[in-house]
Amino acid sequence: MDFKENLKLYQDIVNNELEKYIIKADCPEKILNNSVEYSLMAGGKRLRPILVMATYRLFKEDYAECLPFAIAIEMIHNFSLIHDDLPEIDNDDFRHGKPTNHKKFNHATALLAGDSLLNQAYIVISEEIFYSIKNEFKDITDNKIRAFNEFTKATDKMILGEYLDTELEGKDISKEMLQYIHENKTGALLKLCAKMGAILANAPEKDIERLSKYADKIGLAFQIKDDILSEEGNSEITGKPVGNDKELGKVTYVAYYGLEGAKQELNRVTNEAIEQLKIYGERAEFLRQLAEYIRDRNK
Amino acid sequence: MDFKENLKLYQDIVNNELEKYIIKADCPEKILNNSVEYSLMAGGKRLRPILVMATYRLFKEDYAECLPFAIAIEMIHNFSLIHDDLPEIDNDDFRHGKPTNHKKFNHATALLAGDSLLNQAYIVISEEIFYSIKNEFKDITDNKIRAFNEFTKATDKMILGEYLDTELEGKDISKEMLQYIHENKTGALLKLCAKMGAILANAPEKDIERLSKYADKIGLAFQIKDDILSEEGNSEITGKPVGNDKELGKVTYVAYYGLEGAKQELNRVTNEAIEQLKIYGERAEFLRQLAEYIRDRNK
Repeated sequence: MDFKENLKLYQDIVNNELEKYIIKADCPEKILNNSVEYSLMAGGKRLRPILVMATYRLFKEDYAECLPFAIAIEMIHNFSLIHDDLPEIDNDDFRHGKPTNHKKFNHATALLAGDSLLNQAYIVISEEIFYSIKNEFKDITDNKIRAFNEFTKATDKMILGEYLDTELEGKDISKEMLQYIHENKTGALLKLCAKMGAILANAPEKDIERLSKYADKIGLAFQIKDDILSEEGNSEITGKPVGNDKELGKVTYVAYYGLEGAKQELNRVTNEAIEQLKIYGERAEFLRQLAEYIRDRNK
Repeated sequence: MDFKENLKLYQDIVNNELEKYIIKADCPEKILNNSVEYSLMAGGKRLRPILVMATYRLFKEDYAECLPFAIAIEMIHNFSLIHDDLPEIDNDDFRHGKPTNHKKFNHATALLAGDSLLNQAYIVISEEIFYSIKNEFKDITDNKIRAFNEFTKATDKMILGEYLDTELEGKDISKEMLQYIHENKTGALLKLCAKMGAILANAPEKDIERLSKYADKIGLAFQIKDDILSEEGNSEITGKPVGNDKELGKVTYVAYYGLEGAKQELNRVTNEAIEQLKIYGERAEFLRQLAEYIRDRNK
């Protein structure tokens, strides 16, 4: 099976699973549920849950034990998108080619849909741990509690990163600060995906470290590629105006390294990511292709 | 020791403990930390953590095992206050006689401080469970995981309640809907406090039920009293303009029962709350006084 087919297969698993958590009841809070569903099912790439599952599958044949955590992380990701798009942060009108949540519903509903999704992620995790301990799967429960702990800390970093990105927009910041922002805003959650996948698969500490490093690098590559696309991408494909970041006074990797320098940097960190996978040979083929996909994507 | 002294003692314990979670570092995200601290330490009554601890102490001599959960619930309460005050929800300029978070800082910072507090509650809980399982306190860990699960579901209800309260403002709603909103918006979290206190103290199921019912009733009393104060309270003491709810077209217990009817209802549910405590005799003295305090407060 080629990479695109594999990716689609993973995406279908995630989408089917997410559907199970959508509340369809005709209750008074129907519109809030619709608002949550609208963003959660808007057709994102599902990169984060796929990264959890693909890492987990380096060590296991199935993905049952990691699926709830993969779902929870997609909920966190979507909470952050809804709040980032709000007028007081990025004030975006469109996402995935559709009106943003507050444009489709209203400001108050989008705020509370985001809050609800952040908390729903923890409902999913608590149900999973509660089930596990009731059935006395001691070792599995230990790993799930560790994953839960990592999850809370990475989400904290993401919120801090979002704060810094908003607060420092248009200001003169150092390259170190640029990196610090992205490590928190985008990097922490991607790193968490690989780390959780390995923890839940009961992988040795050495592997958890190695795969965290892999995710660190693809997180960085992801951000550099974003900046390159913003500078020279096809706005019809990316859905964002070309040169938009420059106009907004955003500090980007392109602003620091120049376009060619940023591309070299992108290649370098992608290679460093792939380097971490060598020890796993053929089993890591999908994760290798995923790093290349992040480097080569056009949106 | 009289009730007021006891209350003060509990408040001091909560405030001292909360202080430990305030990040004072001179890091780039300093202002976000300040914004969190501003709301968390603004001097609330600490009713929720006190309810956790007082319920726990019906069964135990100390409060060590329940304190992190008491702190986490105060974080959730403060997250909800910050977001409720935002322009898109209640648009409040003052709380506890001080500018609301978004007035003191800005809209984006208040949004993210609320997000951060919601997530920090789960950091505190996950650290506690992680510590517990690493040290192999099996039974205690089971109770903590159950408390975590109850915590996520009550917070979900609170967000739904907030949504309904916002969405239905100024609309004609039934008495049943009024009750449904308050059961979710205010009741769920208060009920959680007593329930968690009992669960964490390893109380028998019968007691968990009884104390949940007690908390249910004081939650209802709390809301009825709020509505009465809004109608006839001293605005200099309550900090809110008299008759404000009526002007906003809010459906209140006073609107349904009339002022005298609401006062009778308040007495009735307070007595029902106290009824639940009979079996515990003298040990429940503080919880009994707490119910009376909610009934008799003037702000």
